[in-house]
Amino acid sequence: MQQDDTRTALQLRSLVKSNGDLEVSVVQVPVPTPAANEVLVRVEAAPINPSDLGLLFAGADMTKASQRGTKDQPVVTARVPEAALKSMAARFDVSMPIGNEGAGVVAEAGASAAAQALLGKTVAALGGAMYSQYRCVPVEQCLALPAGATPAEGASSFVNPLTALGMVETMRNEGHTALVHTAAASNLGRMLNRVCIKDGIALVNIVRNGAQGDLLRALGAAHICDSSSPGFMQELTEALAASGATIAFDAIGGGKLASQILTCMEAALLRKATQYSRYGSPIHKQVYVYGGLGLGPIELNRNYGMAWGVGGWLVTPFLQKLGAAGMQRLKERVASELKTTFASSYAGELSFVEALDLTTIAVYGKIATGKKYLINPNKGVKASRP
Amino acid sequence: MQQDDTRTALQLRSLVKSNGDLEVSVVQVPVPTPAANEVLVRVEAAPINPSDLGLLFAGADMTKASQRGTKDQPVVTARVPEAALKSMAARFDVSMPIGNEGAGVVAEAGASAAAQALLGKTVAALGGAMYSQYRCVPVEQCLALPAGATPAEGASSFVNPLTALGMVETMRNEGHTALVHTAAASNLGRMLNRVCIKDGIALVNIVRNGAQGDLLRALGAAHICDSSSPGFMQELTEALAASGATIAFDAIGGGKLASQILTCMEAALLRKATQYSRYGSPIHKQVYVYGGLGLGPIELNRNYGMAWGVGGWLVTPFLQKLGAAGMQRLKERVASELKTTFASSYAGELSFVEALDLTTIAVYGKIATGKKYLINPNKGVKASRP
Repeated sequence: MQQDDTRTALQLRSLVKSNGDLEVSVVQVPVPTPAANEVLVRVEAAPINPSDLGLLFAGADMTKASQRGTKDQPVVTARVPEAALKSMAARFDVSMPIGNEGAGVVAEAGASAAAQALLGKTVAALGGAMYSQYRCVPVEQCLALPAGATPAEGASSFVNPLTALGMVETMRNEGHTALVHTAAASNLGRMLNRVCIKDGIALVNIVRNGAQGDLLRALGAAHICDSSSPGFMQELTEALAASGATIAFDAIGGGKLASQILTCMEAALLRKATQYSRYGSPIHKQVYVYGGLGLGPIELNRNYGMAWGVGGWLVTPFLQKLGAAGMQRLKERVASELKTTFASSYAGELSFVEALDLTTIAVYGKIATGKKYLINPNKGVKASRP
Repeated sequence: MQQDDTRTALQLRSLVKSNGDLEVSVVQVPVPTPAANEVLVRVEAAPINPSDLGLLFAGADMTKASQRGTKDQPVVTARVPEAALKSMAARFDVSMPIGNEGAGVVAEAGASAAAQALLGKTVAALGGAMYSQYRCVPVEQCLALPAGATPAEGASSFVNPLTALGMVETMRNEGHTALVHTAAASNLGRMLNRVCIKDGIALVNIVRNGAQGDLLRALGAAHICDSSSPGFMQELTEALAASGATIAFDAIGGGKLASQILTCMEAALLRKATQYSRYGSPIHKQVYVYGGLGLGPIELNRNYGMAWGVGGWLVTPFLQKLGAAGMQRLKERVASELKTTFASSYAGELSFVEALDLTTIAVYGKIATGKKYLINPNKGVKASRP
């Protein structure tokens, strides 16, 4: 992409200084001219995913944040705790753009046929800096939305859909036939529930209260276990025995939940065992931790034999292993089921100025199940054509 | 194999009753006649490995054990704690033979050429019931020892050698180039050190005190980190940066060590990172827990990004995946380096009666680095030819 410094547009930025000061601001940045294989997207909807929040606020305590700057270009400041700061040396004093994904209208296109074909179309994009009025991305990172779909409907076409599909593919690739998901009432969890119902895969949904269980029940979920229930371990063991699930994807991380899942998987497997082995069931039991909702260490009590694993899981390395053809197959499925399987719901749509309002931050900065917000970088901004 | 009830010999047995009583005894069992592809081994040396101890004493508190029975056939009794009992339902009221491996002289051989070729030879065997005066095993489970090797020299030809080689092969198969080992001054640890020196593989040895460090230093180990040192984390990070190790095999399990290893691996990797990633280094870091020296839960604090895994590791499933040809290759290496790379040392040789002496149990029942005992089922027994 080329840059023409005479035209600029707004972009959200996050900066961590080596002294631990966090600065979130709206800045004017040059608007690039797309290269042959690129398109310039006027972004109208970009979700605030948990992964975006981590980068945006860098673990700072936002309840003690303060605001300065101007009404149109506010600056929010806060302090990053020492413990979190240690792993951030590589981003010190680098003003970073944010926003993994979003959707909008292609305002300009490069010379290639593939780029030209998208001109004027509404597309979703996996861009890495989607909290921008205009974002220039290669055609491969775009997904043309089906006719009639709005940017808001297509804003979450990548992270959650590819994560849900990635979990199911990982399950299959590693030889399992059913799976467990924690924080199952989240946007992602409800999407995974729809994928599994459509594909006929048994899914054990672990929720954290009865209301979340009711929500999933209304959505047709067959196996629901409430981790706040006194009978949780027994109920989980029953659901695992019924479903045969031996792999779990855990959004929580901290605490005993991963270990409890492995314990119940082993108990379900040992029901079918006919011979004693001091090493436990030889069937491999796996928990992948893909989020960090729970702080504190993971505690593993190891009463599930020797055939077990716990590890981190991210969709990006999974997609890299999958390759271009596999990625294309997943993207096509997302497009064709955008308004059904892969539909997302949002609690509201924020302009840049609203997103930097301290009261609003207190709402969306808390990762609460089912309360996801969209940023619309062009909301409340004088209509501009770069 | 056929049985001829007119001839019997002694065998060590372990029995757990559903009420939690443990009974370890010496019993007379029929001596089988080898089938075509089998040999009958007069066992003269079988090591007491940690894995044997687990099955023999079933987690019972042996400091409170008592003895009854006769002088020649004593019976030791103790109580299995409730917590340990839960996972043992499948072995309740089944009198189990013990002894993963051992060596002795082939007293009888089946009709096949392969079996006949072993007649009179000193062989090691992976038998599963080697604490027996006579043990009948298929030829494939035997390893003919090199000329002049004694049963004591060949007694540990399988578990430790195949575990050490299995760790190195797992390291290679999973794309790592160097490895970490904990409890590194153990018999197994010293063997792994010799394998790595011979094969030119960088090994980071984690020991639990200075004396163990000195021992390994004298054996030519290049990287030694003492987990009791105040500078442990820094020293480990340096050793990991120097060696490039991103996989560890951990005998301890409980506590923070696995997490500390992952933390230091990440720190070593981030030294080379040029760009910030909120997901940490993309290089996968793995800790395999193969033992349970440390009680209590494993605590993982997850300050090492998303590319990490912790899991159980056992040599048996590894060998199953390796297949017959791979197994043969490893066995041949063990035979050719039996007195060098794969030499074991023992603190003593016990008869069955000595092994059931309460004072002796207090010594070998404690898994102490470097203090491994052999059982000789034919020691002090009137010479018998079944």
